[in-house]
Amino acid sequence: MKVRDALRFVYDKQKKMFILGGIISLLDWDQKTYMPRKASTDRALQISLLSKSLHQLMVSDDLWKNIEFLTREKNVEKLSEEDRIVVERLRRDVEKARKIPTDFIERMSKAEATSYSAWEVAKKRSRFDIFCPHLERIVELKREYCGYINLEGHIYNNLLDDYEEGMRYERLKPAFEYLGDKLSRLLNKLESEKKIDLKLSKKAQERLSFTILKYLGLKRDRFRMDLSEHPFTTRLSTFDVRITTRYVKDKPLSSLFSTMHEAGHAIYELNLPKGRFRYTVISDAPSLGLHESQSRFWENIIGRNYSFWKFFYPILKRIEPALKTSVEEIYRYVNSVERSLIRTEADEVSYNLHIILRFEIETELLNGEIEVKDLPEIWNEKMEKFLGVKPKSDREGILQDMHWSTGDFGYFPSYTIGNVYSAQQFYAMRDFIDDLDAKIEHGDFKEILQWLSENIHRFGRIYTSEELMRRCCGEGLNPRIFIRYIESKYLDI
Amino acid sequence: MKVRDALRFVYDKQKKMFILGGIISLLDWDQKTYMPRKASTDRALQISLLSKSLHQLMVSDDLWKNIEFLTREKNVEKLSEEDRIVVERLRRDVEKARKIPTDFIERMSKAEATSYSAWEVAKKRSRFDIFCPHLERIVELKREYCGYINLEGHIYNNLLDDYEEGMRYERLKPAFEYLGDKLSRLLNKLESEKKIDLKLSKKAQERLSFTILKYLGLKRDRFRMDLSEHPFTTRLSTFDVRITTRYVKDKPLSSLFSTMHEAGHAIYELNLPKGRFRYTVISDAPSLGLHESQSRFWENIIGRNYSFWKFFYPILKRIEPALKTSVEEIYRYVNSVERSLIRTEADEVSYNLHIILRFEIETELLNGEIEVKDLPEIWNEKMEKFLGVKPKSDREGILQDMHWSTGDFGYFPSYTIGNVYSAQQFYAMRDFIDDLDAKIEHGDFKEILQWLSENIHRFGRIYTSEELMRRCCGEGLNPRIFIRYIESKYLDI
Repeated sequence: MKVRDALRFVYDKQKKMFILGGIISLLDWDQKTYMPRKASTDRALQISLLSKSLHQLMVSDDLWKNIEFLTREKNVEKLSEEDRIVVERLRRDVEKARKIPTDFIERMSKAEATSYSAWEVAKKRSRFDIFCPHLERIVELKREYCGYINLEGHIYNNLLDDYEEGMRYERLKPAFEYLGDKLSRLLNKLESEKKIDLKLSKKAQERLSFTILKYLGLKRDRFRMDLSEHPFTTRLSTFDVRITTRYVKDKPLSSLFSTMHEAGHAIYELNLPKGRFRYTVISDAPSLGLHESQSRFWENIIGRNYSFWKFFYPILKRIEPALKTSVEEIYRYVNSVERSLIRTEADEVSYNLHIILRFEIETELLNGEIEVKDLPEIWNEKMEKFLGVKPKSDREGILQDMHWSTGDFGYFPSYTIGNVYSAQQFYAMRDFIDDLDAKIEHGDFKEILQWLSENIHRFGRIYTSEELMRRCCGEGLNPRIFIRYIESKYLDI
Repeated sequence: MKVRDALRFVYDKQKKMFILGGIISLLDWDQKTYMPRKASTDRALQISLLSKSLHQLMVSDDLWKNIEFLTREKNVEKLSEEDRIVVERLRRDVEKARKIPTDFIERMSKAEATSYSAWEVAKKRSRFDIFCPHLERIVELKREYCGYINLEGHIYNNLLDDYEEGMRYERLKPAFEYLGDKLSRLLNKLESEKKIDLKLSKKAQERLSFTILKYLGLKRDRFRMDLSEHPFTTRLSTFDVRITTRYVKDKPLSSLFSTMHEAGHAIYELNLPKGRFRYTVISDAPSLGLHESQSRFWENIIGRNYSFWKFFYPILKRIEPALKTSVEEIYRYVNSVERSLIRTEADEVSYNLHIILRFEIETELLNGEIEVKDLPEIWNEKMEKFLGVKPKSDREGILQDMHWSTGDFGYFPSYTIGNVYSAQQFYAMRDFIDDLDAKIEHGDFKEILQWLSENIHRFGRIYTSEELMRRCCGEGLNPRIFIRYIESKYLDI
């Protein structure tokens, strides 16, 4: 075997995987935007056929043989810096994927499908007992999965690592405890102010959304926005990134924030590394948390910033000339804080408390400290502890999220990691960009976009997100920075 | 090998091919409707990856071995009627596909790509000499292709058979001569009347289109309509059929006819056989001509029918209250006849003359009777002969269609075959449905839809289109019926 041939082989396979991944994303995008309802059975067949092909490519002996050959000491030396990065990263991914037996993947996906259906029924009827045996099965399978991966430390690390490569329970636990304590206290000091006299037609909301996209530099020749029930972002290929938004009745600015959130993801996706890295595993984000930091940055740090509203208020006024609310009132409205029961509707302060609650439950569940059957009670207790409110039903309590029904354990922390990272990035770029506030006030986001691209986006998966944060912000996850950000903002409002 | 196992194998493979085909259709649909422009390079990679997989499945030795086994005399006997039909049809398809060397497919697709680009430039500059050497290469490759297929009779049969299985040059030639002669004469007798005082906003055109879809029974849970530059229809899976339309400035009813045309295709696609045939080669139309008969039926036979306009005029009036034109004027307008240069804009009478001209050129070219370099002159002569007009430039002459640049020889006749079939079907259902005109006048299309479904759609590819026409209309292609239809209508207007 020659190094050159082996290199070509692994690049070809990665390209094929990249292309297949993009097609699966299109199938998924279409399903959530335009697909006729009756097509869902066939769509599932289409997605599963390609997902299987993708997985087979990933775990094939051929690919593994070539990677092993390229990572032999005497061959590594012959690789260029870029190729070495690609091959090493690919090796880790493939090694991990090959740890999981094929029959497990099938058992898992079957369990997820039935569990999801059971959760739907259970939520509808607000009856945890319908979902309970399914969740028990899922937890059992997740434990089996952890056995295959078998990382050091807490069992939860094996799940966390799928979303936050390199992040560990042992590091998150104290950070989340600190955040939980600080945010609970802060919440006690803040009063809710959720009313506003602002009504916007769908058309006006649409215009607001498309206007902000223009300021963020998203061009229509490589990007588009459509509607879906749950907003999302997806990359179909190098120059094809799509977001969705939705218009919610009685929440006139919801679509604007949703658009800014997804635009943050989209900007990241469009700036991922190209060239030699284009069709490789490097052309991706290192972690969901870092990805989320980009969406939160635009949605919260910018979108809920006073300078931003000084810039955006005249635009809103142009689109809705009847507007009576002042810029200060709008600023207070978009930053109103509430002890709410539902995570997806939570504000900047309380959102992380919802996550920390889930993190505790997930880790204790995996660890065997608590049992699935006791979850409704545990949930309610923790809600009282963190948020000071108690759900009246399982529907607005333990059953509110679908994530566990589809086996997504280890996923929730990414949201809070993203929130913390976004504040850290904001302070870092503040030191770097002159007159940042004035620029935001003028809707001039050029330097912000540039800072993000140069310090974060263009590295793809070359570094882990913690390494990347150390490079651009001087340190990894630091919840103190987030608390500084949130206190300086909310104690001031 | 067991019959049961072999059957499962071929059904599995067909299902996989069906699913892959549907995904390719989605990639194509998205490209023509929503895809950002910059994504085209990656989209080409996505389509080519799956097309290759599909082709590999089709010509794989595994599949062939199982088909051969199932078509041995002693095994055929063990098959059910339905399985026998599937296996026999599949055998013919696979046998044909295996005749073509893989390297030829690659050479052909490369030649098509460069030839298409050359045609684009040539058309833009109206210079045939730019396109000429490419077209020569395409014709050469098409001859090579015919050599692999090697059907009896005229060389053109090998190409025609790809679109109109079982149809032969020897049968088309006299039919087209008859049509050419009759229609040229008729054209001489008819005067054009193309003016109308009707303007419709995009919104109004859209409402017209969606209204007619409702009357045609197309339900939104398995069907949708979007916009594209060139209207088309595609089936993504059993219950996912999509059409597109477009709104043309200064042609207020163009979108209505385009919608009815594509709706005809869509109704056919949605009615294709299911059950045991669902994911097999049988769940398809037997020929493009028959497919076209369905679109022409709704676009022309119904959409340009006087009874239809008695029904549709009040709807138009509701959508456009300022409407001054009478129903008679609209009827004459939508049936105005013209000696035009461009096929795609031609009316019911002259359209087929454009096709017959192309048919003559294609067959003579393949046969070696004429040469590519002489085409502009030959084109213009034939235009004068058939339509009595002469193009002023190659752009509106020999270069107007893209089909030859992408190697689609043998395709054009399907349009005229479809027109003829549609008239035959109209007369056949007239004998069967009581008060057909009255029903059309009331927008009651139930029995028409039922007749089409029961006599044509539900058979898929069980029969060839000629066999199917004999079953439902008593005879195969009969141009006399078309002439009877067209004369009785146009000599009356």
